[in-house]
Amino acid sequence: MGSELEKWVLMVTARTPTNIAVIKYWGKRDETLILPINDSISVTLDPSHLCTTTTVSVSPTFDHDRMWLNGKEISLQGGRFQSCLREIRARAQDVEDKKKGIKIKKEDWQKLHLHIASYNNFPTAAGLASSAAGLACLVFSLAKLMNLKEDNSQLSAIARQGSGSACRSLYGGFVKWDMGKEDNGSDSLAVQLADEKHWDELVIIIAVVSARQKETSSTSGMRDTVVTSALIEHRAKEVVPKRIVQMEDAIQKRDFPSFARLAYRDSNQFHAVCLDTYPPIFYMNDTSHRIISCVEKWNRAEETPQVAYTFDAGPNAVMIARDRKTAALLLQRLLYNFPPQSDTDLDSYIIGDKSILQDAGIKDMKDVEALAPPPEIKDNISTQRSKGDVSHFICTRPGGGPVVLSDGSHALLNPLTGLPK
Amino acid sequence: MGSELEKWVLMVTARTPTNIAVIKYWGKRDETLILPINDSISVTLDPSHLCTTTTVSVSPTFDHDRMWLNGKEISLQGGRFQSCLREIRARAQDVEDKKKGIKIKKEDWQKLHLHIASYNNFPTAAGLASSAAGLACLVFSLAKLMNLKEDNSQLSAIARQGSGSACRSLYGGFVKWDMGKEDNGSDSLAVQLADEKHWDELVIIIAVVSARQKETSSTSGMRDTVVTSALIEHRAKEVVPKRIVQMEDAIQKRDFPSFARLAYRDSNQFHAVCLDTYPPIFYMNDTSHRIISCVEKWNRAEETPQVAYTFDAGPNAVMIARDRKTAALLLQRLLYNFPPQSDTDLDSYIIGDKSILQDAGIKDMKDVEALAPPPEIKDNISTQRSKGDVSHFICTRPGGGPVVLSDGSHALLNPLTGLPK
Repeated sequence: MGSELEKWVLMVTARTPTNIAVIKYWGKRDETLILPINDSISVTLDPSHLCTTTTVSVSPTFDHDRMWLNGKEISLQGGRFQSCLREIRARAQDVEDKKKGIKIKKEDWQKLHLHIASYNNFPTAAGLASSAAGLACLVFSLAKLMNLKEDNSQLSAIARQGSGSACRSLYGGFVKWDMGKEDNGSDSLAVQLADEKHWDELVIIIAVVSARQKETSSTSGMRDTVVTSALIEHRAKEVVPKRIVQMEDAIQKRDFPSFARLAYRDSNQFHAVCLDTYPPIFYMNDTSHRIISCVEKWNRAEETPQVAYTFDAGPNAVMIARDRKTAALLLQRLLYNFPPQSDTDLDSYIIGDKSILQDAGIKDMKDVEALAPPPEIKDNISTQRSKGDVSHFICTRPGGGPVVLSDGSHALLNPLTGLPK
Repeated sequence: MGSELEKWVLMVTARTPTNIAVIKYWGKRDETLILPINDSISVTLDPSHLCTTTTVSVSPTFDHDRMWLNGKEISLQGGRFQSCLREIRARAQDVEDKKKGIKIKKEDWQKLHLHIASYNNFPTAAGLASSAAGLACLVFSLAKLMNLKEDNSQLSAIARQGSGSACRSLYGGFVKWDMGKEDNGSDSLAVQLADEKHWDELVIIIAVVSARQKETSSTSGMRDTVVTSALIEHRAKEVVPKRIVQMEDAIQKRDFPSFARLAYRDSNQFHAVCLDTYPPIFYMNDTSHRIISCVEKWNRAEETPQVAYTFDAGPNAVMIARDRKTAALLLQRLLYNFPPQSDTDLDSYIIGDKSILQDAGIKDMKDVEALAPPPEIKDNISTQRSKGDVSHFICTRPGGGPVVLSDGSHALLNPLTGLPK
């Protein structure tokens, strides 16, 4: 470390995707290390539409660790942040920036303080796995700053201690979180099953559902499930292991019908064990149920799955369409059943990859109003077209893993002061 | 049988209660005989508030079997009606009415035709187990008409073939449907655990919830569950047998906390296996969830269950309060959270045993509007008081079993013509 007069700030900015589980993680066998009771599999979502950007910086002028989330300072005192920081500092290496004349020895990292700024390009509280992307990005960016030798899989075991599902955000494409066997959690980490190019026809549409009730946090929810559900052990020990094997196979073979069936049945079973919890946990609401019913009717009419659906710990639906053509047909159905409120413009109602909207032949609100009922509900007179039940839709696709953003314009901290820009 | 000129009509009128399961029946091991995959336990509801009245009649002038439900003629061709009629005729005995000079030999019942009229004192389609009361009443009244020697338990095995849960309506109080072991179903029948006087403090309040969606019939729903749920077998074989023993014990000891915990956990698990079914079945809706949340908050605040809840194959909540005082406090909470719509009068919003309303100190709509939020939600600002989510409440209690109504004024058929009055 240089002299006491040194005022340098060293920083790294990285971007990390969020992910959606298609075989669900629910229940821990170790609360502190965050070790799960079963394996899980996820699809990484395209970071252009849903990601966290984090800038981490170090400077001899910083007098304590500080963090800002979406521009607002938050506490780093939580046990989970502390676990991640401790684990990363323990693995820190010598760092040298010859251009800036900075040299940090690995033992110095224990004394140096950090400034961290993180930003989600989607609403934090909307139940879109912001903590997964956030913790993965924190760990990934710090690992780069401190020159860790660990690969992404080993880093995933650190991110896991911040937020279980964060470990799956260390890779793009299709990712498995191996529950591991060791008591110390060293083998409970993420592995990539296939990258995002392996199956690139898939299109993902997320319905962000307007929630009326406050939700149970997933941390306390899964704890209650493990303690009180009479079904969770059977799920974790008997049902999930078979589904993991089948899902890996479906992904390798790009077998959409099997992929879809496993995804929606596993999502439904996760919500079933939530309901079997005492007190019962309800994450899906009437709008979620209607989205399922809309997709199920169509899948049944086509006699083979067109769209998979899965719901995390909230009412939002994540739908995975087999290809772009199917996604356009899905979007028509969704807009027919869940039109925007009169004061909402289409441009803010469908966000992300708007080209799907063009494929669906929808240019403006008149096109939405002119949508005919899909053929599969022709004889069902009672179809409701209720406005306002869905806040907005996000069109996206499977995407890549974490990346370092070397262009300084992405940095969230001022390179001179180390404070938020 | 008398001469061809005889014009006599012989009739019997009976009244049979409905029942609500507190350990649920869901899943058959034999679709035709209606044999369940687990035992179930129910509470019989007071027939003054919820019952079926049925008049059965026989006459040499009738040329085929006919039935009227709530004044409208319906077909008796269904397999389930036919099973019941066949089983009862096979057990018919000699009947003699000396006053009327009528003599029917047991073999004559195979040739004689029946007229049947049935009436529910509650809406048939409201998901209040109308088929249970209806089939039980059909079997019970025909057994009286044809002078069967079988006791109510043996009759329950016939009613079971009409509608599974009907077998539990052959007794008042607390009833167990023993799943039985025999392939022919002879030991799959109802037994009374205790009569209604055994535990007469209990008060039952039913919230009839306004449903927006058409529901899955329980017949097809349970078939789908048995075929597709990965959890139902574990429930039927491992979970329910223990709960049956515990529930019998709770009822014998009038142990309300155990009774309540078993009832709501079993209800939630039944809905969990419905959700684990493919395609998923949702019987509860957002209003059902809010009712659960209202009861759970209160129970938690009191640190011991005040109210049990259970939901059948629909969104209606059946709440069982430990005593009258608790029921009045429950009704206040329900009216606070689910006030009637402005155009509904209180008298049609709270039906059945209206004395609970008096106990709650509520005389008119002004009293409803003046209700303060219950203490357990004091710090929750977001409480909604949404009107119209509940259609009405029925206040009732555990009640007695089937009875013959000998006063002719109750008869639904004209004693001279055998046609609906």
